Amino acid sequence: MKALVYHGPGQKAWEEVPDPTIQHPRDAIVRVETTTICGTDLHILKGDVPAVTPGRILGHEAVGVVEEVGSGIDNLQVGDRVLVPAITTCALCEPCRNGLPSHCETVGGIGWIFGHLIDGTQAEKVRVPFADTSTHKLAEGVTDEDVIFLADILPTGFEIGVLYGNVQVGDTVVVVGAGPVGLASIATAALKGAARIIAVDLADSRLQAATEFGADVTINSGSEDVVERVKALTDGRLADVAIEAVGIPATFTLASQVVRPGGTVANVGVHGAPVEFPINDLWISNITFTTGLVNGNTVPALLKLIQSGRLDVKKFATHHFTFDQVLDAYDTFANAGETNALKVVIAR
Amino acid sequence: MKALVYHGPGQKAWEEVPDPTIQHPRDAIVRVETTTICGTDLHILKGDVPAVTPGRILGHEAVGVVEEVGSGIDNLQVGDRVLVPAITTCALCEPCRNGLPSHCETVGGIGWIFGHLIDGTQAEKVRVPFADTSTHKLAEGVTDEDVIFLADILPTGFEIGVLYGNVQVGDTVVVVGAGPVGLASIATAALKGAARIIAVDLADSRLQAATEFGADVTINSGSEDVVERVKALTDGRLADVAIEAVGIPATFTLASQVVRPGGTVANVGVHGAPVEFPINDLWISNITFTTGLVNGNTVPALLKLIQSGRLDVKKFATHHFTFDQVLDAYDTFANAGETNALKVVIAR
Repeated sequence: MKALVYHGPGQKAWEEVPDPTIQHPRDAIVRVETTTICGTDLHILKGDVPAVTPGRILGHEAVGVVEEVGSGIDNLQVGDRVLVPAITTCALCEPCRNGLPSHCETVGGIGWIFGHLIDGTQAEKVRVPFADTSTHKLAEGVTDEDVIFLADILPTGFEIGVLYGNVQVGDTVVVVGAGPVGLASIATAALKGAARIIAVDLADSRLQAATEFGADVTINSGSEDVVERVKALTDGRLADVAIEAVGIPATFTLASQVVRPGGTVANVGVHGAPVEFPINDLWISNITFTTGLVNGNTVPALLKLIQSGRLDVKKFATHHFTFDQVLDAYDTFANAGETNALKVVIAR
Repeated sequence: MKALVYHGPGQKAWEEVPDPTIQHPRDAIVRVETTTICGTDLHILKGDVPAVTPGRILGHEAVGVVEEVGSGIDNLQVGDRVLVPAITTCALCEPCRNGLPSHCETVGGIGWIFGHLIDGTQAEKVRVPFADTSTHKLAEGVTDEDVIFLADILPTGFEIGVLYGNVQVGDTVVVVGAGPVGLASIATAALKGAARIIAVDLADSRLQAATEFGADVTINSGSEDVVERVKALTDGRLADVAIEAVGIPATFTLASQVVRPGGTVANVGVHGAPVEFPINDLWISNITFTTGLVNGNTVPALLKLIQSGRLDVKKFATHHFTFDQVLDAYDTFANAGETNALKVVIAR
């Protein structure tokens, strides 16, 4: 088969590799129909994730069709159409049983293994470990593009932003950063009753997208004083929840400045450096800070919302490619500042 | 009357001052029978809390008897014996009605006003604003010493350590710092079902106190590798909750290192400087960090536990003084390293 193989920092190729095979009774082999590229893949290509070694097939998001199942799997059959999400869960270890598959001990303590510790989904086929508990069967009528973003960014924005942020009915929520994951928080904050969603970004094009995804107010942090705007919008009280969806010190600080006493800062951004935490000022503010890797526990619920038409995430897909155009897809996604790409879809 | 008056950094006196008077219909005047000194008072005397200006009577903890009530108070009578806690709550503003009197807007946004923004409790009498909702009537049979530590440290250790730390039945809880507030967390963690309480400190005398207050394991961080000990005690899983009760960068870092993925670090320590927050390592760990000033919401519940004999906090009182010995009490408390003082009791 063909796959997108990482060959060390800055190097990748769409090349012929051996087909994957069943290695464990709970494995399945899935023929990939649709995949996408994540910001994390770009980090890997920069060499930022040393656990990813040369020769690794990248990608951790897919929709596909089951081609083969291991002897230990009762709930999947050849031909089933499934979503393969970023997180693998054995469902048996203590973290998995406690709702924390992001830290599945059976797969090594971090549930994200595709395109990281094992070969991933940017390939014609993928071996899916613990496929009985790590895939979601898809109903008739939902398209690949309807659900591909439930593999990672949508539950990340919802679980790590909205749920960890403890959004309550009536809350004002500030989302700092209107890239794909920030938009996923914006698109799902109303599910928990947010009364007002405020998007903050430097790029007007992203703020326009934020409005399309459900933001009520947008603030360009390059030209406006964000804290003062949020104060003005909240009678001086500040926001109930801030979701940090960038991953740099300045945006982390900003997120902590726009939250009221007793509020929550939910960090979703992937940070490359420590941040200064002004705990000398904040200890008295009763503010909670959360961090996290997605668990994917909400994927079944989000699938129902898509099926019922209450959630539409197809609009993340701004650019489309075929498998043999995957290198072009990377270029388009990596140059989002020029291409205005949100997410790229790569399909057969 | 006489009172302990702050006269600028390093300067204080037990001196004659005018009696307090009713200034608002919801005020009461309370004759102070018992008070104590808080670590915060020592910070004030160092000049660390600029909002406290010379001439201010210090102290924010008292047990006393109501001498006079304003015309707007229906639920207190002259002669009632009451606990006067650190936090004043109007009970009417949005934060108070949402369970956050630590940020009562009516008194200026921070519920701690005694010995801070208004005259405090280290005096023969004190004016208590919003006394109908900011005092707790005491039952017959409980002594002043039974309840004086419910004015601040006990609910601080319980609310900001144990409750914000989200201690669950069966949890392993590490308390970093076995000073009075750390001991308050240790004394109350079992109320939420902690299975194992691990106390960490540099001083063996404090670790001995920790054992007396309910710690199951003690670790001297001067001579042992705390992270390795906690790993060894938890099959490598680390603790579910860490409570930081010191307030310096090293202990904050240590607290974040002993918590398992998905766990909580509850910061109780009062910090004088920012800390480095290694969010580049922690973002993937699903760890929650909480901060806070006590609300006092749990004081009625803690009073019931004291009345029923399930909680004994008298043992915080290691040294006793009369009102006219208050300067000696300060010396004893400020030199706790030599005197082994936990808390001092100052009574008529």
